[in-house]
Amino acid sequence: MSTQLERLAAVIESRKPANGGDPTASYVAKLFAKGDDAILKKIGEEAVETVMAAKDVRAGADVSKLLYETADLWFHSIVLLAQFGLTPQQVLDELARREGISGIEEKASRPKD
Amino acid sequence: MSTQLERLAAVIESRKPANGGDPTASYVAKLFAKGDDAILKKIGEEAVETVMAAKDVRAGADVSKLLYETADLWFHSIVLLAQFGLTPQQVLDELARREGISGIEEKASRPKD
Amino acid sequence: MSTQLERLAAVIESRKPANGGDPTASYVAKLFAKGDDAILKKIGEEAVETVMAAKDVRAGADVSKLLYETADLWFHSIVLLAQFGLTPQQVLDELARREGISGIEEKASRPKD
Amino acid sequence: MSTQLERLAAVIESRKPANGGDPTASYVAKLFAKGDDAILKKIGEEAVETVMAAKDVRAGADVSKLLYETADLWFHSIVLLAQFGLTPQQVLDELARREGISGIEEKASRPKD
Repeated sequence: MSTQLERLAAVIESRKPANGGDPTASYVAKLFAKGDDAILKKIGEEAVETVMAAKDVRAGADVSKLLYETADLWFHSIVLLAQFGLTPQQVLDELARREGISGIEEKASRPKD
Repeated sequence: MSTQLERLAAVIESRKPANGGDPTASYVAKLFAKGDDAILKKIGEEAVETVMAAKDVRAGADVSKLLYETADLWFHSIVLLAQFGLTPQQVLDELARREGISGIEEKASRPKD
Repeated sequence: MSTQLERLAAVIESRKPANGGDPTASYVAKLFAKGDDAILKKIGEEAVETVMAAKDVRAGADVSKLLYETADLWFHSIVLLAQFGLTPQQVLDELARREGISGIEEKASRPKD
Repeated sequence: MSTQLERLAAVIESRKPANGGDPTASYVAKLFAKGDDAILKKIGEEAVETVMAAKDVRAGADVSKLLYETADLWFHSIVLLAQFGLTPQQVLDELARREGISGIEEKASRPKD
């Protein structure tokens, strides 16, 4: 799994115009060339499409629809991270850090036996 | 990295009331107990907070703010996936699948030398 | 003001393909022709652009930017209402109804003199 | 209709702490006291709830659900406008201005008879 996210982040990084990405040949390079607002709009769009997909699945659509939209959301999240010099690994580290804290908190908040 | 996402997904899965998660002691168990709409609202909220954080970083806030909000967005995405019987690994596989296709497409669309 | 919202709603209603709207000549007729999902995506997009505009105004952009994005959001809300057989007047009536209730509630919740 | 929106905007304006609004007694006064981010989060939340409501209506819920969520979205939009010194009338004027332009554009773009 590591390899997958790291490789994807590396591909996205290589699409930055500063790294040789070609906005006429690559969707991601074009997003980077447009800048912050274009990327942020995609975060909003993909989140709403994820919500719509979940509703569609409950109304009978195949669950793969939700999988595809979540993949779109994560993909554009990684583009956003790259735009700000961040990596998916840092997100995973932050989540692991919280899991540690949360484990302690949840234990602490457990009613005494 | 694999271990991190897989372990997080396993912890989230264990918080489902059907798996013994206690809505009075765990935030995630409470979300699962509330159901689809509560989780979907969080996706919308966290996406908007991610957008706001990116704007705040450009206005001078520390970039960690964007990292935290992206972690929140991914965390609640994993809760949503679990609610629909899906896993982060399936999202990564979908992204890897596209990367393969996209690599071919981008090569194909490259201007001939 | 009445005239403005009612007239706008009437223009939008006339753009429905069933009412003679031409998707090749009118943006709204095209949205109606695409259906629910196209309209719902616009609600999500315009909401996020409104949030971004507010942040931009605080960072120095002219306040008219927020006005334009809010107008976009309301415009697409009226298209959505029309798609579901509803009108802006019904939204205003609902808001007036709440204002009445809220006036009473806020009075009731006031600390006793 | 004018009276309704203008009166609502006036009530909201009166809830600003600077105008005597009491955050302990009024929901709107509390939102103003919290500031920009609290209001912007509500815009995101209400937009997503509007999208969810539309999906629910298609799945069998009463159409009033969409009406209520749109009313919530407009209500919080007016709070946002007030926070930035703008009024619903300015939004309506902007929409009327576009309708004029759009009327001309749509006529111009019509295929010649």
